[in-house]
Amino acid sequence: MTALPEEFARIARHFRPLAGPAGLGLRDDAAMLEPPAGRALVFTADAMVAGVHFLATDPPGLIARKLLRVNLSDIAAMSAEPLGYLVTLSVPHGTDDAWFASFAAGLAADQAEFRVSLLGGDTTATPGPLTLSLTAIGHVAPGGALRRVGALPGDALFVSGTIGDGALGLRVLQGKLDDPTGALADRYHLPRPRLGLRLGGLASAGLDVSDGLVQDVGHLCRAGGLGAVIEAARVPLSDAAREAGPAWLETILTGGDDYELAFSVSPERAVELRAAAAASGIQVTRIGRFEAGAPEVRVLGTGGAELHFARSGWSHF
Amino acid sequence: MTALPEEFARIARHFRPLAGPAGLGLRDDAAMLEPPAGRALVFTADAMVAGVHFLATDPPGLIARKLLRVNLSDIAAMSAEPLGYLVTLSVPHGTDDAWFASFAAGLAADQAEFRVSLLGGDTTATPGPLTLSLTAIGHVAPGGALRRVGALPGDALFVSGTIGDGALGLRVLQGKLDDPTGALADRYHLPRPRLGLRLGGLASAGLDVSDGLVQDVGHLCRAGGLGAVIEAARVPLSDAAREAGPAWLETILTGGDDYELAFSVSPERAVELRAAAAASGIQVTRIGRFEAGAPEVRVLGTGGAELHFARSGWSHF
Repeated sequence: MTALPEEFARIARHFRPLAGPAGLGLRDDAAMLEPPAGRALVFTADAMVAGVHFLATDPPGLIARKLLRVNLSDIAAMSAEPLGYLVTLSVPHGTDDAWFASFAAGLAADQAEFRVSLLGGDTTATPGPLTLSLTAIGHVAPGGALRRVGALPGDALFVSGTIGDGALGLRVLQGKLDDPTGALADRYHLPRPRLGLRLGGLASAGLDVSDGLVQDVGHLCRAGGLGAVIEAARVPLSDAAREAGPAWLETILTGGDDYELAFSVSPERAVELRAAAAASGIQVTRIGRFEAGAPEVRVLGTGGAELHFARSGWSHF
Repeated sequence: MTALPEEFARIARHFRPLAGPAGLGLRDDAAMLEPPAGRALVFTADAMVAGVHFLATDPPGLIARKLLRVNLSDIAAMSAEPLGYLVTLSVPHGTDDAWFASFAAGLAADQAEFRVSLLGGDTTATPGPLTLSLTAIGHVAPGGALRRVGALPGDALFVSGTIGDGALGLRVLQGKLDDPTGALADRYHLPRPRLGLRLGGLASAGLDVSDGLVQDVGHLCRAGGLGAVIEAARVPLSDAAREAGPAWLETILTGGDDYELAFSVSPERAVELRAAAAASGIQVTRIGRFEAGAPEVRVLGTGGAELHFARSGWSHF
């Protein structure tokens, strides 16, 4: 009987400490979890490729945390709470142990912050770029999930946090924009899934903004069969985004990588929404409204004139 | 509002028909599933890379089915029943619509065979080889899962089906071996997850054989803190593997890609095992035993002499 391949030692060293009881120490063929009684489960999966979704030279811990967080943002978008995740890594030959240690340390930091644990996964070699895939699992009261369908004419359009920082952060990393405080690059590297904001049963529809605000609000329009108006001047900006100046408005509204929530709320529920936002410590801002009509998003400038952009959002192809 | 990116049309065209009710038409940020009452859930994920786990020129439908089946084999290894899956695809630029249609048709065929549905996923571009990741979800009675830990000295070692066909099939595709009937290549392309064989509460331990019989039985030894003996002459071979001849014994026992179950059964439960096997229509064969001692696997030849191999199994690195 020869020694075990290095793969098993690597899993034991770096990933086993991340597994909770359900992960069975990553020693079995699958994880096993007794789901919370009376709750529905939510599932989401996203892949990330070096050179497409992150830079191969990014710190491995930041890559790991972004991978986890973009999936947790989808859990937040359903107004669910996270339980755990599985991750697969296809890594270039020669990836060293320090890389894995750093990647796992990033996951460990976010596991503590978001109270999730590793359920399982797979590592394999690739002749291509580092390619990662993560499946996140959450739970929500049956019927309590936030869906994309449900916005009604007259509902207000809200977003959480600030918009555009992630997209501007990518431009910073590409050398196209200054970022004296580092705030923009930080937002690109490290999304903040809005897990604390309980919108289930309160917002009429919602999603997370990952492909660009205009495009993602368009999803709410198509799902609900109605139009939306965004008032550009109301879109909440960080100090750093405001510093960038008006030339970056299109990037802010269409660039993606926000991982904020966009959602519709009936005017009668506005007080409840303020209370939910205050309880979560997450800022919410009304940026427009839904209206009867074709499923289109109109963006209005300060004078009320419609703005037109060359592209509405980010395509993964 | 510009047209939606091609990505969304592709998802609607090829993947939406695969989604069951829990997949919410792949229109939301996550799938939502009310788990079967009183059942534990099992989760497993595997990645596959073109040029490593399959050939880039393999028919897309076969790639899809292999990806799903290797994960269903892990569900079977826990003696669980499958519920659904999420899949992420990182595809080279220029991958055409016909490729996606064929990939989805493969999934559709296996969804019907194994009664699972698509819960969600992601597609993204890659400058590298086609890279796939799939997470499968199953359910099992709490306490009824088959684990790797639990084999006891005196337990018999069994395998399902036949061993070595997948590994020989790879050699066929590499031009190293003839395969007049095509049976070996077929087993390599299309594993048969042994979902019907109910071993929970009957076998004392078990797993699926994916990295090579010797190495995987070694996992049962390490988990249980005991040794195992495999009698090479008892290992069940297909007609095609037997045709290959004795020169291929090492490949058969260490090559991997079997996706059969290896498991330990107390001698008193032998009659029950025969009944379970008969009920499932899956052949099971006793190939050796577990014994007190160091966690090692010894392979004995026909005369009882120990056989030694250069390698014990497949490493993913």
